[in-house]
Amino acid sequence: MPRYALLLEYDGTGFVGWQMQAQGLSLQAVLEQAASRLAGGAPVPSVVAGRTDAGVHAEGQVAQIDLPAAFPPDRLRDALNFHMKPHRLVVLRAALAPEGWNARFSAVGRGYRYRILNRRPRPGLLEGRVWHVERDLDVPAMAAAARLLLGRHDFSSFRAAACQARSPLRTLDRLEVTRQGELVEIVAEARSFLHHQVRNMTGTLKLVGEGRWPVGRVAEALAARDRRAAGPTAPPEGLALTRVRYDPDPFTTTVVDIPEREPVCGS
Amino acid sequence: MPRYALLLEYDGTGFVGWQMQAQGLSLQAVLEQAASRLAGGAPVPSVVAGRTDAGVHAEGQVAQIDLPAAFPPDRLRDALNFHMKPHRLVVLRAALAPEGWNARFSAVGRGYRYRILNRRPRPGLLEGRVWHVERDLDVPAMAAAARLLLGRHDFSSFRAAACQARSPLRTLDRLEVTRQGELVEIVAEARSFLHHQVRNMTGTLKLVGEGRWPVGRVAEALAARDRRAAGPTAPPEGLALTRVRYDPDPFTTTVVDIPEREPVCGS
Repeated sequence: MPRYALLLEYDGTGFVGWQMQAQGLSLQAVLEQAASRLAGGAPVPSVVAGRTDAGVHAEGQVAQIDLPAAFPPDRLRDALNFHMKPHRLVVLRAALAPEGWNARFSAVGRGYRYRILNRRPRPGLLEGRVWHVERDLDVPAMAAAARLLLGRHDFSSFRAAACQARSPLRTLDRLEVTRQGELVEIVAEARSFLHHQVRNMTGTLKLVGEGRWPVGRVAEALAARDRRAAGPTAPPEGLALTRVRYDPDPFTTTVVDIPEREPVCGS
Repeated sequence: MPRYALLLEYDGTGFVGWQMQAQGLSLQAVLEQAASRLAGGAPVPSVVAGRTDAGVHAEGQVAQIDLPAAFPPDRLRDALNFHMKPHRLVVLRAALAPEGWNARFSAVGRGYRYRILNRRPRPGLLEGRVWHVERDLDVPAMAAAARLLLGRHDFSSFRAAACQARSPLRTLDRLEVTRQGELVEIVAEARSFLHHQVRNMTGTLKLVGEGRWPVGRVAEALAARDRRAAGPTAPPEGLALTRVRYDPDPFTTTVVDIPEREPVCGS
């Protein structure tokens, strides 16, 4: 069965998250139901690079589906987009995947962006897309605290209780905090993240930005390897999965074999 | 009665537009009902710089309200934002207005931005905020055509039948078309616009971008002074009122007398 890589964009508002749940509509269900219509009604299971939580968005999620018959990639993209209407989930690109490629295990990097609207008035145009924080954030202090988290660490202090990863060790390659007017953006990159890791780091950095924590306390929280030592989980709506990296990129290259990787948690 | 200037942001989705209508919820009604609660239940009429249509957004709309008693401006902003919940209309700033200042007639410039999502897949994250155009747009051609509309002209060809302005003469100070990846942005500035003028110019420039019209036909359409000579009206959801200019700016300056201006249509 030919395997396809799908580059996805979605507005996570109103979904129970990527993964199917007993109750509520998941992005996975919307994708798999549309794919099933291209497979004569047969079930089409999908695998995704990052299993985003309810309310989390994506600009560059990657999923795989195996179809019983080959489709020209652009026709596959258009057919899925047609069948997924009116849901705010769209296929940006589709490509025939290389042999052995897996959307989750072949990923060598994941990028997330967290957006805080830092002003007194609540969001008008960005409702559901940002975390609204009223107190003026000290972005240089947040950026300094973020640098303390870079590198390979035991991130137990920033890991959700429900995280299923075997190891709490992760290598954080990038964690930058910048301001663009009223928007404070946190950009995070790693091969993989623990469950809620980006939101837990964000909730902790916000305490630094508000002046409630000194910068150095973030290093202490990390060293504690205890979830209770770090700050609260930032709300989901400010988070977006912006990019998943593969080497080679299935959307721009021809078929090459890629070795499988360790399992990872969604962030 | 003290007059207040209000800088407003809103998501126009689901509203019948700024102005109150027989049916449906208007932004004006949401603002005036909230203001009435600060006036002991008395009606508080508002005046707005640009009466946006249903589905049109604003990042920098300006309205005025007269209140029976003085309020500290920041408290007024917070109280209105509280009472306007959960509607996606917020006051960004409030200021005591100079004597004789009028949100509509004192405006010396209005700025709009129109956004086109120019790609094959429909919008996921930008649904309701962009016009989705699939055919690849020739932005340099659109920009060249836009320049033909600059300056003082009779804009009858780009004027809605319902426009109430006494004169079809307007001076277009800026009309720029640029591409940022999949987004094509049209920025328009003038002292005032005719009703639907920005959307009618956009619908016409899109024909040029698609190669269906040569650049020069835009000059012919303008010269015809006939609505039927120009292109169709672009849909409302791509449009946002980004800025209203006053001299002096009521949000940054102290009280100065400003002469009244001619009435204008919303765009």
